[in-house]
Amino acid sequence: MSYTFSKIVNSDFEGAVSHVKDELKKEGFGVISEIDIKDTLKKKIDVDFRKYVILGACNPVFAHKALSAEDEIGTMLPCNVIVQESEAGKVKVSAIDPVASMMAVKNDGLGDIATQVREKLKLVINNL
Amino acid sequence: MSYTFSKIVNSDFEGAVSHVKDELKKEGFGVISEIDIKDTLKKKIDVDFRKYVILGACNPVFAHKALSAEDEIGTMLPCNVIVQESEAGKVKVSAIDPVASMMAVKNDGLGDIATQVREKLKLVINNL
Repeated sequence: MSYTFSKIVNSDFEGAVSHVKDELKKEGFGVISEIDIKDTLKKKIDVDFRKYVILGACNPVFAHKALSAEDEIGTMLPCNVIVQESEAGKVKVSAIDPVASMMAVKNDGLGDIATQVREKLKLVINNL
Repeated sequence: MSYTFSKIVNSDFEGAVSHVKDELKKEGFGVISEIDIKDTLKKKIDVDFRKYVILGACNPVFAHKALSAEDEIGTMLPCNVIVQESEAGKVKVSAIDPVASMMAVKNDGLGDIATQVREKLKLVINNL
């Protein structure tokens, strides 16, 4: 089972980050955290890494449903969408599949919510 | 399979958040994102929710190893530790078990790293 939906996009890194945010917004997701891995690894352990950003995407309506169904599900939120440099200067975008990441959580009520969020994140990647 | 390590702690909410950060630091984790769910749900959809904070914990040495072994693993990083109000004013802290959240990822190299991080997060919770 794949645990992401991903696509190589035809834009530069910064353009891709901006485009991802726009598409997330269309599906009702805000970006509530943004982690620059390249910058973090350089600062913390002086390692050079390729451009790599983690966007924490949160659809508040679905987050509220998920948290109401399963009190510890915040350990798996928000749903991350990453943008990274790939080989040969290409830019790859990948969204988590919440059905895969939440596999270990046994809760039927949550499963339905994860499936709905999966479809929205799939759309975000398809529309890039 | 449980997907978290958790404990009810004997302190108020803010004290627990601070204590968690101290214990994470002892195990080499920085907090690189902090999401206030109560505040976010109130602002975005005007819903009242209990106190609930998601701390994104990152041990940069292990994060670098994980990202080098599996390029899309950033969709599951950082490792979240949540602090929430429980019934009767109690405060519960839960850390993700990365072995559980990364179940769907088939990569033996990553498995070893996830197991080491799991042990560190278990220690953080035990030491609260």
